[in-house]
Amino acid sequence: MKKINVVTSVLKANDAVASGNRERMEGAGMLVLNITSAPGSGKTALLERTIPALAPEMKSAVIVGDLQTTRDAERLGDLAVEVTQINTEGGCHLSATQVSDALDGLELKDLSVMFIENVGNMVCPSGFDLGEHVRVAMLSVPEGADKVAKYPTLFQPADVILLNKMDLAEVLEYDTSIVREDLSRINTRAPLFEISAKTGEGMDQWLDWIRNRYQHQGK
Amino acid sequence: MKKINVVTSVLKANDAVASGNRERMEGAGMLVLNITSAPGSGKTALLERTIPALAPEMKSAVIVGDLQTTRDAERLGDLAVEVTQINTEGGCHLSATQVSDALDGLELKDLSVMFIENVGNMVCPSGFDLGEHVRVAMLSVPEGADKVAKYPTLFQPADVILLNKMDLAEVLEYDTSIVREDLSRINTRAPLFEISAKTGEGMDQWLDWIRNRYQHQGK
Repeated sequence: MKKINVVTSVLKANDAVASGNRERMEGAGMLVLNITSAPGSGKTALLERTIPALAPEMKSAVIVGDLQTTRDAERLGDLAVEVTQINTEGGCHLSATQVSDALDGLELKDLSVMFIENVGNMVCPSGFDLGEHVRVAMLSVPEGADKVAKYPTLFQPADVILLNKMDLAEVLEYDTSIVREDLSRINTRAPLFEISAKTGEGMDQWLDWIRNRYQHQGK
Repeated sequence: MKKINVVTSVLKANDAVASGNRERMEGAGMLVLNITSAPGSGKTALLERTIPALAPEMKSAVIVGDLQTTRDAERLGDLAVEVTQINTEGGCHLSATQVSDALDGLELKDLSVMFIENVGNMVCPSGFDLGEHVRVAMLSVPEGADKVAKYPTLFQPADVILLNKMDLAEVLEYDTSIVREDLSRINTRAPLFEISAKTGEGMDQWLDWIRNRYQHQGK
């Protein structure tokens, strides 16, 4: 019982900070997306293609979470206006407080979108609101078609779902109908986009979805 | 400070149960391997190829951890002598107590190897001894070559490291030298085997390693 109380209060404290983050970024007119997936699903590759494509009309900032290294931030450094790397030093998810601290060091003026690239993990990030408007859950073809059923807590709260590395679907004989069927049981409101961040396949749908969501946000 | 104490005592309690598990399986003459990786790296596919290959001389049991579903246990049901699925219901790793409970329901007599397939996660399982003799850390080619540097806590305690899905190395232009270089900084004692559980490439090295380790165990 004691244990449950501790967990509850940690989550409540996180949610309060998350609300503050959301207000702060909303005040700057930004749409905030929290991107969650397993390690190596292609979150950084997605951003490498998304940020330049949006750039003519919308400028992006990125907060990247990793246990160690600044490799993702280095990959994104030239593309986004602002990039902040958070090293969680063992932590398996970002927290709202870490994002709040990162925001202190950022100039949000003139920015339209904040992408938060969470720590690669299909379990831990699920329960932690970071102050986003949109939760993105990504899976990739080489991981197998059973991941929605096996990690429902990642996909259930998602507002949009990306199935990445579709360029490998044929060679791996991937059956997308399994993913769609599993999603039909746990999340019917989020659209599923089949994409390849490598080849660009399906990226237009994803980009249009962000643009529409951003316009909706401003109203 | 309070928080750190709680974590420490949880880990200590886990370690005590893990020692009991180890003694129990050692008493039955078994070698115990704890297999850790990201979701979709191919843990179940590895076992689908490993268990039948060992079967003539060594009979295997499997304990499989997942948040939800019994899909992995179903895939392995026909191959291993005993298969137990543990559903962690949100937990991002197996604990020694869950393994101990699973052992209560197993007939260990005449078995040589216990494979524990941990929850797919590159962070949480690292700190939890389950009673294994061998910690296996696996990564796969489509996840990218940066995973050793980004998730050192998974690879540092490993006794053997598997790089799976080598059949995709050419099409994905994968550079194994990055993995080897990163490993040279954090773990020089564990051998790295480049394998494909799909094609069978490199599996002989891995199987020989298990056989040798088992013989060593018996002495």
